[in-house]
Amino acid sequence: MNQIIETILNHRSIRSFEKDRPLSQEQIQTIVESAQAASTSSFIQAYSIIGITDKEKKTRIAELANNQSYVENNGHFFVFCADLHRHALIGKMEGKEVEPSIESTEKFMVALIDAALAAQNAVIAAESMGLGICYIGGIRNNLEEVVKLLKTPDRVIPLFGIAIGYPAKISGQKPRLPFNHVYHENVYEENEQKYIDELQEYNEIIQKYYEERTAGKRNDTWTSQMGTMLEKQSRMYMKEFIEGKKMNLR
Amino acid sequence: MNQIIETILNHRSIRSFEKDRPLSQEQIQTIVESAQAASTSSFIQAYSIIGITDKEKKTRIAELANNQSYVENNGHFFVFCADLHRHALIGKMEGKEVEPSIESTEKFMVALIDAALAAQNAVIAAESMGLGICYIGGIRNNLEEVVKLLKTPDRVIPLFGIAIGYPAKISGQKPRLPFNHVYHENVYEENEQKYIDELQEYNEIIQKYYEERTAGKRNDTWTSQMGTMLEKQSRMYMKEFIEGKKMNLR
Repeated sequence: MNQIIETILNHRSIRSFEKDRPLSQEQIQTIVESAQAASTSSFIQAYSIIGITDKEKKTRIAELANNQSYVENNGHFFVFCADLHRHALIGKMEGKEVEPSIESTEKFMVALIDAALAAQNAVIAAESMGLGICYIGGIRNNLEEVVKLLKTPDRVIPLFGIAIGYPAKISGQKPRLPFNHVYHENVYEENEQKYIDELQEYNEIIQKYYEERTAGKRNDTWTSQMGTMLEKQSRMYMKEFIEGKKMNLR
Repeated sequence: MNQIIETILNHRSIRSFEKDRPLSQEQIQTIVESAQAASTSSFIQAYSIIGITDKEKKTRIAELANNQSYVENNGHFFVFCADLHRHALIGKMEGKEVEPSIESTEKFMVALIDAALAAQNAVIAAESMGLGICYIGGIRNNLEEVVKLLKTPDRVIPLFGIAIGYPAKISGQKPRLPFNHVYHENVYEENEQKYIDELQEYNEIIQKYYEERTAGKRNDTWTSQMGTMLEKQSRMYMKEFIEGKKMNLR
């Protein structure tokens, strides 16, 4: 196994960072350049990255994202955005009618995928420098507020934050779904019973994982966790919000 | 600069692979496990990966994706899918009403981002082994056909392919948007003229890049490329298609 795969397989979310150890400008630059090196659909480059250094803004974002302390206390906080704003501008510059295209669900998907590929490159680059990272989906709790704070225009959607810094505490690694459950050959698994059996097999692994880590206090299964989480309807404002920003419309 | 960042910054899409040099089962497994090591929103693991080994299926997918030869001729072809099918099943297993949640735009975004983070991990892992890769968005030209071929159920959306193999021809690296244009501090760039100036500065870089590579035959700008591409409305069936698969509905 080479060093890169070792780094990838060793990933865990870090939720506690060394205090007063901000990233250097050089580190920030390397992380952003690594993000930009990712593939981009038809060279569209449909994302932007906003680094938050303003203390008040950071505190406010942390509040919006469930008061997670590591959103406020880290080496640097990045917000990754799907961005078709510059493409709307290009329409004006080039005298082309681009709105139907950039308002489509297809281009919304392109922008999301572009931003996520870039983000994961940023993460691997950061981890390769000995930094820890945590994705912060919590910024989507209240995107209207985030948009006001970051002054993003229409067609720019803040998708998630990434807190990066020097790890103060290393967390455990949760076992993933079984290989055969995630990886199919030629056709998607058609045997529903096999699929359910695999989930039950995975449940046992997850129960054991929690039991060992909590000295028996916790032993929920993955499917019960997911059932409970998904029964709760969260961020149901999203469709209207995105459409209001003139994306995912047609 | 460490070896990992070197690998990331050295990325280029490879569109020609050595013939008859398939990936080994071990390589496939390492690539998928690397994908699975990526962060996943609230542990939801909302994606699946389908490897295509059946020759006829591969030929058909290549046809659907604009007859690009490297879709057919490569070391292995992966299809990455957004997947909330297993979560619908979990709803049944756990007796929870999960449909409103998994049919939301929020969860559609989660599944897309999850799949893309996993894919980029797979790509970096592959490149670290000396393999080349090319993302294939062309499978979205006709998803109804792809879904039939791969027999994916409702709530599974094939997003893109990744062709992986031993590079037969190394391509060039297109310069990315200027750092300052993509990376903002605290607030999104509010000065539209500065934004346009940056695009024009980038246009010159891109023109020079094409001129040098084509001995002066080609010298289009990035904004003209984007304007022409986005004026064309492509894959406008996507919204209806995704909704038909019971995602991005509310």
